[in-house]
Amino acid sequence: MADAEARAEFPEEARPDRGTLQVLQDMASRLRIHSIRATCSTSSGSSSEIMSVLFFYIMRYKQSDPENPDNDRFVLAKRLSFVDVATGWLGQGLGVACGMAYTGKYFDRASYRVFCLMSDGESSEGSVWEAMAFASYYSLDNLVAIFDVNRLGHSGALPAEHCINIYQRRCEAFGWNTYVVDGRDVEALCQVFWQASQVKHKPTAVVAKTFKGRGTPSIEDAESWHAKPMPRERADAIIKLIESQIQTSRNLDPQPPIEDSPEVNITDVRMTSPPDYRVGDKIATRKACGLALAKLGYANNRVVVLDGDTRYSTFSEIFNKEYPERFIECFMAEQNMVSVALGCASRGRTIAFASTFAAFLTRAFDHIRIGGLAESNINIIGSHCGVSVGDDGASQMALEDIAMFRTIPKCTIFYPTDAVSTEHAVALAANAKGMCFIRTTRPETMVIYTPQERFEIGQAKVLRHCVSDKVTVIGAGITVYEALAAADELSKQDIFIRVIDLFTIKPLDVATIVSSAKATEGRIITVEDHYPQGGIGEAVCAAVSMDPDIQVHSLAVSGVPQSGKSEELLDMYGISARHIIVAVKCMLLN
Amino acid sequence: MADAEARAEFPEEARPDRGTLQVLQDMASRLRIHSIRATCSTSSGSSSEIMSVLFFYIMRYKQSDPENPDNDRFVLAKRLSFVDVATGWLGQGLGVACGMAYTGKYFDRASYRVFCLMSDGESSEGSVWEAMAFASYYSLDNLVAIFDVNRLGHSGALPAEHCINIYQRRCEAFGWNTYVVDGRDVEALCQVFWQASQVKHKPTAVVAKTFKGRGTPSIEDAESWHAKPMPRERADAIIKLIESQIQTSRNLDPQPPIEDSPEVNITDVRMTSPPDYRVGDKIATRKACGLALAKLGYANNRVVVLDGDTRYSTFSEIFNKEYPERFIECFMAEQNMVSVALGCASRGRTIAFASTFAAFLTRAFDHIRIGGLAESNINIIGSHCGVSVGDDGASQMALEDIAMFRTIPKCTIFYPTDAVSTEHAVALAANAKGMCFIRTTRPETMVIYTPQERFEIGQAKVLRHCVSDKVTVIGAGITVYEALAAADELSKQDIFIRVIDLFTIKPLDVATIVSSAKATEGRIITVEDHYPQGGIGEAVCAAVSMDPDIQVHSLAVSGVPQSGKSEELLDMYGISARHIIVAVKCMLLN
Repeated sequence: MADAEARAEFPEEARPDRGTLQVLQDMASRLRIHSIRATCSTSSGSSSEIMSVLFFYIMRYKQSDPENPDNDRFVLAKRLSFVDVATGWLGQGLGVACGMAYTGKYFDRASYRVFCLMSDGESSEGSVWEAMAFASYYSLDNLVAIFDVNRLGHSGALPAEHCINIYQRRCEAFGWNTYVVDGRDVEALCQVFWQASQVKHKPTAVVAKTFKGRGTPSIEDAESWHAKPMPRERADAIIKLIESQIQTSRNLDPQPPIEDSPEVNITDVRMTSPPDYRVGDKIATRKACGLALAKLGYANNRVVVLDGDTRYSTFSEIFNKEYPERFIECFMAEQNMVSVALGCASRGRTIAFASTFAAFLTRAFDHIRIGGLAESNINIIGSHCGVSVGDDGASQMALEDIAMFRTIPKCTIFYPTDAVSTEHAVALAANAKGMCFIRTTRPETMVIYTPQERFEIGQAKVLRHCVSDKVTVIGAGITVYEALAAADELSKQDIFIRVIDLFTIKPLDVATIVSSAKATEGRIITVEDHYPQGGIGEAVCAAVSMDPDIQVHSLAVSGVPQSGKSEELLDMYGISARHIIVAVKCMLLN
Repeated sequence: MADAEARAEFPEEARPDRGTLQVLQDMASRLRIHSIRATCSTSSGSSSEIMSVLFFYIMRYKQSDPENPDNDRFVLAKRLSFVDVATGWLGQGLGVACGMAYTGKYFDRASYRVFCLMSDGESSEGSVWEAMAFASYYSLDNLVAIFDVNRLGHSGALPAEHCINIYQRRCEAFGWNTYVVDGRDVEALCQVFWQASQVKHKPTAVVAKTFKGRGTPSIEDAESWHAKPMPRERADAIIKLIESQIQTSRNLDPQPPIEDSPEVNITDVRMTSPPDYRVGDKIATRKACGLALAKLGYANNRVVVLDGDTRYSTFSEIFNKEYPERFIECFMAEQNMVSVALGCASRGRTIAFASTFAAFLTRAFDHIRIGGLAESNINIIGSHCGVSVGDDGASQMALEDIAMFRTIPKCTIFYPTDAVSTEHAVALAANAKGMCFIRTTRPETMVIYTPQERFEIGQAKVLRHCVSDKVTVIGAGITVYEALAAADELSKQDIFIRVIDLFTIKPLDVATIVSSAKATEGRIITVEDHYPQGGIGEAVCAAVSMDPDIQVHSLAVSGVPQSGKSEELLDMYGISARHIIVAVKCMLLN
């Protein structure tokens, strides 16, 4: 026991009797057998006692209703090889658990607790330490993280091996109440988990020393057998040995949950008034996004917003000012911000929006990817996209974010052009199934839509069209204004172009694109403030690739951009009105 | 002073005299003025004393030759807003510094030292703690990390504010020799940096308490002025005040470096023998890649390999077995692995290859992105791509890695099909400028190229062709075999298809693609073990989008794949020979 605060007694009434201990041990053996059967290896069984004690003695939940909001949560954050079902969170789990615990403590103000089981190998991931810092900063005393220290990674011994003290010191330095325990000792596990429940203002870390292949003399703790499938006969012999140690056939029922989490309604969320902008107003979409979040926060009290030390730049500060109790500052730790959002949104407890510079979201790609596989409904806002950012330099310009989010299954990508469409994007994202990404722009742009304009996911807007149109120019965000300027200039020369504002990049409004292309003799020009790879141009090319009558010319940013003024960079990297005009004329010459 | 080991005396001969101290203080003032001028804010000046002491008293380097291999290294790992040049490493810097220090200590065995300056805000990033664990595990006593703790992030006070002890405890828990110092005190800074140079077997952390807006009464440490540009007159007044404190006009010359780093030659690296495979052999490209790395390691003694606890799966273990002194186990910390590789490869000291599962590389996207902006020559290997992985489940299948690497400027993407082409990919990557990515496959595949076959970047191979070809089928990696099987089956029905193995996805061999398409009546089918977004299909569509006579039909994986057997999944997700045959017939019906 490391922390003085925690040297609490283990009172008689909380202590399991001998019989219960034996049942917990037997349950652990059954879990171990199950793990060996599923994987034909002994690599995943080191935490059987931990899981037995948690599931059958400590946690409160309804077995018949695993998604019940009052249930304690269990997050498995281990990379389990050779398991033929989709595995859990690969080291992202502690951040997700933080989001659940934050939601339980501050939004739900409910009794449910959150347990997260990690391997020692996974704890090498930096995002674990982002989550460790987060949990102690926010005093998540309803959170217990268990480090299953079995000494072995996939390639042999881990850096800290069985030096439990290294884990202990790191957890304590990150502000956690920390216990060290023999992970094979069910009674000791019962005690530390009970003690964790008594601790106030601090999350608890349980550092459990365990052994892979536990209970099997020639295999326990041996590097050679780790993470390898073993012959079936060998596995059968081990299972027999473990079975012979089982002494009871009793089962234990988990304790029922305390039913005190509030009912929430996060469906059919609507803004209470239409957008309050006039055509011609100038406002950056990143600011309109902040205002829209605040408006959405008024419409529904389960809207929560997270940011990563950029709230004055993303304008999520506007929400924070109105609803500080529903704003989570995640500091410069984007991986954890995304994971916390995933945790907040799980079981439909909140509508979560997480914002930072779009460029910095690349840091959280794996967390976004896994959130996509888990079919999460979180909404991510990326500001400062493209070279239009201007002076901040290439490292702060997002030029690959569309490519990244397009790979996420069922992810909706909004790229609103003006303040009105931004407000609609936020409202639509709040209600959409699956992940949403909203890409916002740094410079001010002019409002082009009336407050009455209706927006739908997958529905582009045709901003300019006439019967004489010769080319369809497709833009989104800042490039829409360049396309409109090009249209104005070209019309003076009696060349007419159709201008499309995509609104959502995914799903793409293929019907509007194709019909416009057909109306303009098959000519399309795309123009985007993004790299060509995986961007709007390629999405459009792929959508029309089977149509022999449609040609697509794509304008996009290439190379490593310099810093400069926004308008200068748009021109320098080939996506300004001037370049659109040249492209239109070239296309008409062919 | 925290660490007993470090309470060394500060001997007279190492101690700066009064005059030198004043010059160092004056140099700091000049740096501060420079920072205010460049940014019109006081937000970046907190580390002026630190930089003055490092640059003019501690570090050994040739001012006239900043890239000299014997120079001490300085890595700036702070996000500097409002600086109109491309900024340094955004929190990735400590990992890069680790790579430089590892190279200095173990590969170069030279005297140069590495200094990394970080802000407190940046230290919230998990990758910093991956690097902290790495540096102590590998006893990098030639590395000094300076935490510039000025209390303020971009959005106000940071979690630990000025609680220097929190930083100190975390650094110590991560195994670092740690000093706490007043970051405004040039004498104290001289002392701790001198002491750091005396410490053996441990990296040193210097936790420096600093103040933003230092020396300017109404601005120092004030949240309201932080990270905001100030009016020009105000800046001028502050500059005047600082100028008035400068007492000398003397300059200090840095100490010269110790010239003991070895000459290295990493150009024109060639394998010493042709590939040792026979057509028809069966071997996984991930294994061929491990074998090729070992062969390359024999050809050049500056080839180094890094892995992230997956070396038995990526087969980088083969290299490790042959050249353990040139292998770096980075454990489960992919961000840091990429940064360490960037550091190893900097100044052309090594040819670095870093490998892990391609899916896990998504965790390092931001680090890869910044490495791309820095025009690094590192080589990254991603194994276990696509649904062909089989049983491991969706979270371990890379289906977005091609999209990710395609966005990196000047990145070459190899996707070798068999063992022979894999060996060529490794050799070509070793010599290529810019970043390289090699995508390898888990299951065994048949050798289809003879050892004499020549491979070039951007040069596809036409594997099947005859005058009667009706469709061009483009594959890469595992799908090439599906295309060949489809060709065999179709030829029995007198339908002939051209089969292309791309070899490199970027650059794309557009000439071969277009000429093949023209020869097959404009029909192309692409087939890839990757999501459609940003993948091979979209790359091909974009390449031929201006050609009205070419149609492209793309077969790719969509949705969240289940687990299963490799061949079953290829079929289930629509990229098997059977699906190619259907697509060919459909295309011929249109």
